[in-house]
Amino acid sequence: MEKSQNGEHNDDASSICGYDSLHHLLKDNLKPHHFQEVNRLLTGLNCGKALETIALPDSATALSVEHGFDIQAFHFHADKEVLREPRVVRVGLIQNSIAIPTTSHFVDQKKAIFEKLKPIIDAAGSSGVNILCLQEAWMMPFAFCTREKRWCEFAEPVDGESTKFLQSFALKYNMVIISPILERDINHGEVIWNTAVVIGNHGNIIGIHRKVTFLNFLLLLLMQKYFFQLSNEHTFRRTIYQELETSMRAHIMLKEILVTLYLKQHLERLPLIYVMARNAAIANSYYVASINRVGTETFPNPFTSGDGKPAHADFGHFYGSSYISAPDASCTPSLSRNRDGLLVTDMDLNLCRQYKDKWGFRMTARYELYAETLAQYVKPEFEPQVIRDPLLHKRS
Amino acid sequence: MEKSQNGEHNDDASSICGYDSLHHLLKDNLKPHHFQEVNRLLTGLNCGKALETIALPDSATALSVEHGFDIQAFHFHADKEVLREPRVVRVGLIQNSIAIPTTSHFVDQKKAIFEKLKPIIDAAGSSGVNILCLQEAWMMPFAFCTREKRWCEFAEPVDGESTKFLQSFALKYNMVIISPILERDINHGEVIWNTAVVIGNHGNIIGIHRKVTFLNFLLLLLMQKYFFQLSNEHTFRRTIYQELETSMRAHIMLKEILVTLYLKQHLERLPLIYVMARNAAIANSYYVASINRVGTETFPNPFTSGDGKPAHADFGHFYGSSYISAPDASCTPSLSRNRDGLLVTDMDLNLCRQYKDKWGFRMTARYELYAETLAQYVKPEFEPQVIRDPLLHKRS
Repeated sequence: MEKSQNGEHNDDASSICGYDSLHHLLKDNLKPHHFQEVNRLLTGLNCGKALETIALPDSATALSVEHGFDIQAFHFHADKEVLREPRVVRVGLIQNSIAIPTTSHFVDQKKAIFEKLKPIIDAAGSSGVNILCLQEAWMMPFAFCTREKRWCEFAEPVDGESTKFLQSFALKYNMVIISPILERDINHGEVIWNTAVVIGNHGNIIGIHRKVTFLNFLLLLLMQKYFFQLSNEHTFRRTIYQELETSMRAHIMLKEILVTLYLKQHLERLPLIYVMARNAAIANSYYVASINRVGTETFPNPFTSGDGKPAHADFGHFYGSSYISAPDASCTPSLSRNRDGLLVTDMDLNLCRQYKDKWGFRMTARYELYAETLAQYVKPEFEPQVIRDPLLHKRS
Repeated sequence: MEKSQNGEHNDDASSICGYDSLHHLLKDNLKPHHFQEVNRLLTGLNCGKALETIALPDSATALSVEHGFDIQAFHFHADKEVLREPRVVRVGLIQNSIAIPTTSHFVDQKKAIFEKLKPIIDAAGSSGVNILCLQEAWMMPFAFCTREKRWCEFAEPVDGESTKFLQSFALKYNMVIISPILERDINHGEVIWNTAVVIGNHGNIIGIHRKVTFLNFLLLLLMQKYFFQLSNEHTFRRTIYQELETSMRAHIMLKEILVTLYLKQHLERLPLIYVMARNAAIANSYYVASINRVGTETFPNPFTSGDGKPAHADFGHFYGSSYISAPDASCTPSLSRNRDGLLVTDMDLNLCRQYKDKWGFRMTARYELYAETLAQYVKPEFEPQVIRDPLLHKRS
């Protein structure tokens, strides 16, 4: 993959066109009626209700101006139902770059990230966010690409300093916070996990989720997901953990919001992640929130990346572009490719069941067949069915 | 869904902007370097090799001009391998509208479609297409939306007139042809299937595939899929049938080309189908060929569509836009939204295994877990895991 990573250095999109997001690139360069049409075809806004923007409190926008982070807010509507009130939950996503050089003392690096996140978290809190989601390993540079074990010193116990830092905000703003950290697990021989800590709106630690699936092409586990169902009081109700890669499992799990924390989107992978995350939202009838860190992180020691190319000191540009996909195939515009950002989205959870009824994937799926096929597939002697053309060897 | 179908009538994209395809809408209205960037982000052409166009013989382009159908040709490249030669197969897709009004005699309607397809099939044959794919129920109007059973008279046995019509072309051009028809099954009490007949390059009937999964939201079964692996002589090798909806099954089946014949893409569903088909190509490391009929078909008797709206005489515009997705997340531009079309694509099948190695989804998937979960899920007593916040009922 590094081949393409190096490719990123050479043709980083943001440096080519100097645009902040695909949405702006299209909106700023197409006639309004053309942009409207392109947007309709690409983001499917005609599927559900038109995606409205939300007016955020001045305090939030003031913070974004003062600290230079992107802030955007949208509302996913659902049809009005007779027997259910709308169940609107306000979800916030934060994407951020690191704060000081990776050559700094580890403690200073972590504290600097805390400091830079404070105003963004305050903006989310003052915006009335119910569930705030941070990016994968938000409290450290993405140093795994170096394969230098010394970076493991960033790992913390579940109730470590990063969790403590966030607990006060959770309590202050009555906000559920999902905090993906590098975890040092004392109870299991000091092993390290890629873990998301789920902090309840009372500041309590509800639980954790340790990633299950390793994706080779990211050199590290890719995604961690969470489900939240909010009461009308928007207090945290319950959580279900599962993996996105296990799409079949996700498909059959009850859930309405899936938070996808992906390590990074290489430029070359934007279509991949973009397509797969939206597909997950459509196929499973839930919202998918995709967060990606931003910025370029340069490390002290150059490292190679298994592509035979010369060693390089960074892993390529992390281009943010965090966004949320809905079960009706619509999605929000993406946050900036270059700056820290806060995406606030009101989502009516009723939309999930409405699209389960409308498209009925769960009712038409053939789970018995899948279960049977999988049971066969995992056997070493499994052979796929092959039907041969009897005239296969006839020369024409 | 008809709600949105009616919506199509009111804001048919092609009538709004008068564009032939999303690709042209972007290319014709963006500066070249902006278009290149948008195209790169949306179609992921930077993932694999740049998608080249193929020069087709004058005879083919002449036919397209004479008969007014769209014709486009592209080439998916793969990296050169040391131990395997490139395995390039030329796949052709045909999208077409009906030929004469649905009020005409059924036999005349079918013959008229045969006549209009001849030059398009000749163009495919003279272009050296190895596998030619027709759209779902290509030999009839999509009359299922009327729910009038009289249209069942279009159904044929597997070796019926539509198959016979195509067999001569298969033999003449040494071309495998996938022919999705409405099948009348004498052997099973004259029931009707939504069936794709696979005609070998020697004109023989290799086999059939009857759709397995009904998708509510299309009022009819959605997709039928096929796998072909071609020898270096481009003779038909073998075929494996499965369903796309059974993504897990598809995922674990050997295959390198999946032909998706979808009934129609409502405008509102373009993002849905577009996202899901591309996702299938990425997640399963094979090519996905998506075909959609084109044009508006008006029926003699107005019909309602379960949305409480007044009866209407057509099912909305079928907007073609057929295209092919590749395992590297790239895809071709789409055919016209308004005209018949032939899409010719050279695909190096080596790209499939290259991306299995590169992204390794199959190697990182947790099939045992999925099998176990599915076995549990299909049980009536299945309950998803729920972890509750112990402070759930605490008022804040």
